[in-house]
Amino acid sequence: MINEQYKAMLGGKSVIRSLSEYATARGAAIGYDNVFDYSLGNPSVPCPPDYTTTVIDMYETVEPVALHGYSPSLGIPSVREAIADSLNRRFGMGYTAAHIFPTTGAAGALAHALRAVTKPGDEVITFAPYFPEYQPYVSGTGAYLTVVPADTDNFQINFSAFEAALGPQTVAVLINTPNNPSGAVYSEATLRRLADILRARQTEYGHDIFLISDEPYREIVFDGGEQPYPSKYYDNTLSCYSWSKSLSLPGERIGYVAVNPRATDADLLVPMFGQISRGTGHNCPSSTAQLAVARVIDETSDLSVYETNMNLLYDALTSIGFDVVRPGGTFYIFPKALEDDATAFCMKAKDYDLILVPSESFGVPGYFRMAYCIDTEKVKRSIPVLERFAREVYGL
Amino acid sequence: MINEQYKAMLGGKSVIRSLSEYATARGAAIGYDNVFDYSLGNPSVPCPPDYTTTVIDMYETVEPVALHGYSPSLGIPSVREAIADSLNRRFGMGYTAAHIFPTTGAAGALAHALRAVTKPGDEVITFAPYFPEYQPYVSGTGAYLTVVPADTDNFQINFSAFEAALGPQTVAVLINTPNNPSGAVYSEATLRRLADILRARQTEYGHDIFLISDEPYREIVFDGGEQPYPSKYYDNTLSCYSWSKSLSLPGERIGYVAVNPRATDADLLVPMFGQISRGTGHNCPSSTAQLAVARVIDETSDLSVYETNMNLLYDALTSIGFDVVRPGGTFYIFPKALEDDATAFCMKAKDYDLILVPSESFGVPGYFRMAYCIDTEKVKRSIPVLERFAREVYGL
Repeated sequence: MINEQYKAMLGGKSVIRSLSEYATARGAAIGYDNVFDYSLGNPSVPCPPDYTTTVIDMYETVEPVALHGYSPSLGIPSVREAIADSLNRRFGMGYTAAHIFPTTGAAGALAHALRAVTKPGDEVITFAPYFPEYQPYVSGTGAYLTVVPADTDNFQINFSAFEAALGPQTVAVLINTPNNPSGAVYSEATLRRLADILRARQTEYGHDIFLISDEPYREIVFDGGEQPYPSKYYDNTLSCYSWSKSLSLPGERIGYVAVNPRATDADLLVPMFGQISRGTGHNCPSSTAQLAVARVIDETSDLSVYETNMNLLYDALTSIGFDVVRPGGTFYIFPKALEDDATAFCMKAKDYDLILVPSESFGVPGYFRMAYCIDTEKVKRSIPVLERFAREVYGL
Repeated sequence: MINEQYKAMLGGKSVIRSLSEYATARGAAIGYDNVFDYSLGNPSVPCPPDYTTTVIDMYETVEPVALHGYSPSLGIPSVREAIADSLNRRFGMGYTAAHIFPTTGAAGALAHALRAVTKPGDEVITFAPYFPEYQPYVSGTGAYLTVVPADTDNFQINFSAFEAALGPQTVAVLINTPNNPSGAVYSEATLRRLADILRARQTEYGHDIFLISDEPYREIVFDGGEQPYPSKYYDNTLSCYSWSKSLSLPGERIGYVAVNPRATDADLLVPMFGQISRGTGHNCPSSTAQLAVARVIDETSDLSVYETNMNLLYDALTSIGFDVVRPGGTFYIFPKALEDDATAFCMKAKDYDLILVPSESFGVPGYFRMAYCIDTEKVKRSIPVLERFAREVYGL
């Protein structure tokens, strides 16, 4: 019989996807060039040419039976080793291949990390603003998500609200830095304070609290800065990664979980991920994608366009009169809406063919997200439209 | 905290994988050429050259941002349409793109199909002998698997045992034809009788019973025969497919679910699969793999070696004195062991470097499986060893 739970979810379409579909339809009507579509976080720059030539080279030279054969259930050993080595070089960690589990992107990584350290009925805490898919990701495991209100001064962590929310029922904390949708990059001070609190509560409650760190935007950091590596500050950390943004490969579904070697049961967690896969139908990412990313492990796409776009938008928005925290990374910006009702605000913007995402589904009222992974030329053309919209509708 | 359920599964390593790892280790010691490794169902023939040239062409000519962009959550529309059209041409079905959901292989397909039509506590019935991974696939959904004993005369369906097992608690029946491990191809008569029984029980119990049909070996049928398409005989059928065997692409993780257009809620099921994906971290197979299989949709690898190997082994086994049903397809054969304890039999075979899989985990005692997706030359060399083993240990 049809499963009523999933049937009931059919209404629950993502606001972002609905807006993106509207933008596509509107584009078909008036020309997509005329729609300022800031809805979707789909990378706008190509993968590095080395990725393309690597795959072509593999298809031309590697025996097909080897290239397309089953991965071992925990991933291709040489790929796991290349990932461990790269993380060790960059972040001074002590990973071996045994701590790395290749996954179908960050979604696959989170599906495994969450199942490994929760059981149905447990609490997972995250911080607003947060990626809306965290709700189905967590509820799909049987655990539930508690959202700590935002620190709207700078979109770091609201620690007083976090300390009040934490309790013996909390078994995992889910962070996302650089952050979608705010663009905030958690500072070393933020990560140290978070780790101190978690360690104290582990002792107090007598059980582990895992930090699940979702890091697909790790390499998109502005002003020459770097994202401090969360796992360096807290042993019980599972780092979830995707090459969707850094190599512009979202459709290839390739990422990993990296288990901190000092985590509780560190040596059991990757084999447990393998068991979890058997129940979810995961069974490793594409063998081509695994082998190819391993060959370009320290490369990225040319990500500079995102910083260019961010600076253009940040300057324009502040000069128009928006209240906005300057993003430290990602390709998102998260200004305050010009009225309390962010959905009403975004509906009015649609009349100007400005496609903005209201903030309610990110767990913060009164803001909106712009995904500026679009052509710089279009960002420039959108600025007078933003000005006109703010002036005509809100008198700015 | 570490999930104790998955931790407890860590002992539960697949017998097939353990034997395969033994074969690899033994091969390192004495030369893999000297190990007659019949353990693993990993295709031994390359993908069609067209697949390779198609992927190279796509990487050389398609804009990377398009090639590697996010798939829509229900899969790439042109790919879904190509799959529907191909199935309609071959089997006279009435699929549209709306009935097709691309997945990460058959494991991904089964994960979605099972979740869509069961809820925790429901019963799913399958038939021995069966693929051992059906246990974690089903238990991962919260439903439970009931195994109907084999019809060992021909490895079609033991209908009297099936009719006794079926009850109001049964919501789905899971079949696999051509069958791993027996090589049986369910006949039209078998599929008709199965459908008649299911229709009668649907009426009697007043609820749907879905047929989940796992068909990765669909194109590997011997003697010029064809696998009758199960969905033609029963409306409430979800056909689960993988290109792992027909195109020799197991590592690329590419397959689909096809929903019979006359199934109950046929138009809801694919959108429900999309909701299920959000909880399991699936989010579509690789975009490259989706686009590439669509371009070679009616091709297969040169699968003839499997029939050559089957005939060699079937003739040898029968002439040695084994009791064996001739496979109609796949690359497996499932003879009766020469003693009641199949595991003891296979352990003794290991001393001859014959790697055979005992039948207990397939739900039938006293048999063994040989996966003959290996070089024909090695099959030929293994025959005198099989003869010597049967003579020296069992006096045949």
